[in-house]
Amino acid sequence: MLRRYLPVLDWGRSYDRHALSNDLIAAVIVTIMLIPQSLAYALLAGLPPEAGIYASIVPILLYSVFGTSRSLAVGPVAVVSLLTATAVGQVAAQGTAGYAVAALTLALLSGGFLVILGLFRLGFLANFLSHPVIAGFITASGLLIAASQLKHILGIPAEGHTLFEILASLAGHLSEINLPTVLLGVGATGFLFWVRKGLKPLLIRLGLGPRLAHVIAKAGPVAAVIVTTVLVSQLQLDREGVAIVGAVPQSLPPFTLPDLSLDLVRQLWLPAVLISIIGFVESMSVAQTLAAKKRQRIGPDQELIGLGMANIGAAFTGGYPVTGGFARSVVNFDAGAETPAAGAFTALGLAVAAVALTPLVFFLPKATLAATIIVAVLSLVDLSTLKKTWSYSRSDFAAVSATIVLTLGLGVEIGVASGVLLSVLLHLYKTSRPHVAEVGLVPGTQHFRNIDRHAVETDPHLLSLRVDESLYFVNARFLEDLILDRVTDGCQIRHVVLLFSAVNDLDYSALESLEAINARLRDMDISLHLSEVKGPVMDKLQTGSLLASLNGEVFLSHYCAWQRLASPVPLPPAGA
Amino acid sequence: MLRRYLPVLDWGRSYDRHALSNDLIAAVIVTIMLIPQSLAYALLAGLPPEAGIYASIVPILLYSVFGTSRSLAVGPVAVVSLLTATAVGQVAAQGTAGYAVAALTLALLSGGFLVILGLFRLGFLANFLSHPVIAGFITASGLLIAASQLKHILGIPAEGHTLFEILASLAGHLSEINLPTVLLGVGATGFLFWVRKGLKPLLIRLGLGPRLAHVIAKAGPVAAVIVTTVLVSQLQLDREGVAIVGAVPQSLPPFTLPDLSLDLVRQLWLPAVLISIIGFVESMSVAQTLAAKKRQRIGPDQELIGLGMANIGAAFTGGYPVTGGFARSVVNFDAGAETPAAGAFTALGLAVAAVALTPLVFFLPKATLAATIIVAVLSLVDLSTLKKTWSYSRSDFAAVSATIVLTLGLGVEIGVASGVLLSVLLHLYKTSRPHVAEVGLVPGTQHFRNIDRHAVETDPHLLSLRVDESLYFVNARFLEDLILDRVTDGCQIRHVVLLFSAVNDLDYSALESLEAINARLRDMDISLHLSEVKGPVMDKLQTGSLLASLNGEVFLSHYCAWQRLASPVPLPPAGA
Repeated sequence: MLRRYLPVLDWGRSYDRHALSNDLIAAVIVTIMLIPQSLAYALLAGLPPEAGIYASIVPILLYSVFGTSRSLAVGPVAVVSLLTATAVGQVAAQGTAGYAVAALTLALLSGGFLVILGLFRLGFLANFLSHPVIAGFITASGLLIAASQLKHILGIPAEGHTLFEILASLAGHLSEINLPTVLLGVGATGFLFWVRKGLKPLLIRLGLGPRLAHVIAKAGPVAAVIVTTVLVSQLQLDREGVAIVGAVPQSLPPFTLPDLSLDLVRQLWLPAVLISIIGFVESMSVAQTLAAKKRQRIGPDQELIGLGMANIGAAFTGGYPVTGGFARSVVNFDAGAETPAAGAFTALGLAVAAVALTPLVFFLPKATLAATIIVAVLSLVDLSTLKKTWSYSRSDFAAVSATIVLTLGLGVEIGVASGVLLSVLLHLYKTSRPHVAEVGLVPGTQHFRNIDRHAVETDPHLLSLRVDESLYFVNARFLEDLILDRVTDGCQIRHVVLLFSAVNDLDYSALESLEAINARLRDMDISLHLSEVKGPVMDKLQTGSLLASLNGEVFLSHYCAWQRLASPVPLPPAGA
Repeated sequence: MLRRYLPVLDWGRSYDRHALSNDLIAAVIVTIMLIPQSLAYALLAGLPPEAGIYASIVPILLYSVFGTSRSLAVGPVAVVSLLTATAVGQVAAQGTAGYAVAALTLALLSGGFLVILGLFRLGFLANFLSHPVIAGFITASGLLIAASQLKHILGIPAEGHTLFEILASLAGHLSEINLPTVLLGVGATGFLFWVRKGLKPLLIRLGLGPRLAHVIAKAGPVAAVIVTTVLVSQLQLDREGVAIVGAVPQSLPPFTLPDLSLDLVRQLWLPAVLISIIGFVESMSVAQTLAAKKRQRIGPDQELIGLGMANIGAAFTGGYPVTGGFARSVVNFDAGAETPAAGAFTALGLAVAAVALTPLVFFLPKATLAATIIVAVLSLVDLSTLKKTWSYSRSDFAAVSATIVLTLGLGVEIGVASGVLLSVLLHLYKTSRPHVAEVGLVPGTQHFRNIDRHAVETDPHLLSLRVDESLYFVNARFLEDLILDRVTDGCQIRHVVLLFSAVNDLDYSALESLEAINARLRDMDISLHLSEVKGPVMDKLQTGSLLASLNGEVFLSHYCAWQRLASPVPLPPAGA
């Protein structure tokens, strides 16, 4: 019982020197990568830079106790930072104390919600976000985030929650562009794009192993941070209008209290739910990808508890909502992390950085941080989903394109909500008109196939229909109409047999529809039979009254029904 | 084309003397029945009594031109009258001119919506009302309507849209009870209950045919109307405080114009949609029941147009929303109506009544009308659905009980909306955790059955899973988790075969999940195979990239897969 809720008891037992050294190496690499990333995401969330570092320390410690993934690195991520900025921006102004406190409240609500979902094993709710909706949302968020960071690259102010608002606001301030900022920002962006595309192949050509080359290439932002910081401090570019990070307190994460006033909770609970679910989905997909490579297992409900505890930790230590991040987890995995202890060591490293290294980032230009964000999020933008869904299924294409357009045009919250709603409605629409095939016997076999696709034997007195969908209220009437239409067309029909091999469930509406079909067919002197009814469906039918009143039989196989009921017109003899 | 939209061209061609005489007889009987019923439902809707008669004249004429049912009688019905009172009561006070005009607007919006649904063939939207939700809604509405009529029986004022409000309001006025009203009301109610239960058997015992006895019993309200009207006028009970119908204008239906101001439309469009759908569902179930008895066909999309035109007609002739009524249609059918011409003759009869007979109802007590409503709606109350759904399926029971409780407690609109939402969510929840059976070979056959229920052969290297649900975003991740859990448990597994006989659809999320399962199994050196994939699903898979990357094969039948992949441990020889 205790081990179920504390996975640390599982892996902690067998922890040895070998795992320790691997975890330590991974932790050093991840720490170096996380320092600029944490500062950058705090900037994106509209919070002071130290909030990003604080959000990486206690949450990662708590996750290493409660989480089930061996490789997941928990902390601030791009999409959740954007969602935080949107949600908190609606209740407080950036830079005020109320803003930071509302971010704590958001983290607490989100963490509490995740823990509750985990305790009640409600993780399946996250499945309502379909893959196309997630893909569309991530793509649109990436574009929104990149656009929102342009202001730091250009050195001008800009506001807005939709692509149009942001671009219009930027355009209105274009005359105020700060040249040194642009040079630093564009330079850093270009460098980071090169690091991402060109450095790894270069290092491999220079003789490094591909895994090491990959890890070093991930440290590119650190180089950009060092070079631009030195440039700004030496050339005193801050006096030329280059925005810098400035003084960051040298401190361990402080103890903070979220504001739980009713009014604030009422405004933030819905964004908190959204952040929780999106964060959980993102985190689970990373964790599962990495776990599968080592044949390990992720417990979705325990993951909810792990991520929830991490967020609750963030709420009490000056952070903001966190989740398992893609980039940092992959680096952690590639650098050889074996257990969640690597996360704990990373937390230690970041704590040291928070105390000792923060004065070094005084002259770090915000443009560099914006550049790291832009390069990171543009890699999330993937328009290929549009093309793939277009060729695979129009309804999935509708969901992904609606999500992209509405996220860009009306903001992240409306975008993702519309995507979910649309995919549910399209699914219901599809199942509302199930495929029903009239089948006949393939000569010489006991198989029945669609009469429109195959040469099969039929009997004018016997109508065999294969129902290719579970029957429930949305399609119950459809079947009723279809059968009644079909039998009023064919005046010779004396038996209708429904082949139920693909009917996996039958709700009360469908039961009543079948009873109505049965009664109406009886009025027409036609009997209704069922064949190949599955065990669970048969169990249900036996509790209802249909079987007692059925004007026909239930056959084990469709061939049994055919043998009993059909007197087929024989196919003409060959050569006749 | 024209005949599709004007079914009258169909049956009008073959109209003969025989049909004419049958239709005329039916029309006389239905007219007699409709006079008190129309007055009563107008009272329920909060409108002057003549509105009920007007709503039965032009709508029934238009339906006989555009509708497809040979027996349906269109006009005011109980549930729609209640919905009208609720909706219009929110925008105007009863008895004002604005109230009557808003009822016209509601009829026009509702008619327009129905016609649009019909033209775009969107009748399937009505299927979102599941049978349990409809049953619960009708039952709760019946109780609400009966409670709302108690004020007329007791002769006291009462208001409210929920059961609690109505009963509390009645209790507050109990001291003002009017004794003559109570005597008339209770007497009429008792008489009508007796007519419903006891008169028909009595008539049959007296030698009448059962059909004639049935039709005469339906005329019971006419007797109650005549007796109580005479009593009131002779004893001058109106001076003792008995509320009477009073002066009703002697006129054909007037030409009226609905108010289409933006503000009113904004307040009424949602109730109009609700009224349309509920009215359509009620009407269709009556029409289909009657049509099946004569092997006739109802065209759902043309029905929408027919009912829509009837409502538009009501809007321009002093009526209010109408639909096909259960009681009147059954009487029409039983009285021998053969074509929609019977409806047209009924309209003529009512027009004569509107011009000539209205002075006769001057002394008709409202208590008698309330009694006819109470007796009619209490026959709609059917709590057996609660019991039946409880034993059949808990989720259907949840839908029906939520609908009843919320309709009674929070009003008709919230009640039915919650019922629809709950049934959709419960359905999605059920499909989110599909039944997946591990199957093995039934010895001596080519059949595969659940290993937990049957004695079957298995192979420790081969995992055969039958997926009993279409795969889509809500359950895609469930399958992913299930398979990965299963293979991390069984270390000897080298092949996973998914038996797809019950998979009717596969959306893009499920495709991506299968690709992820494929990739993760490949990382574990396990191959993934599919068997018995249906044609439509196979067509879709061929447009995606799964088949190209599949780390295994697609088998025509599961037995083929078994033959190729299994090396089963033979069952021990008998007697060993």
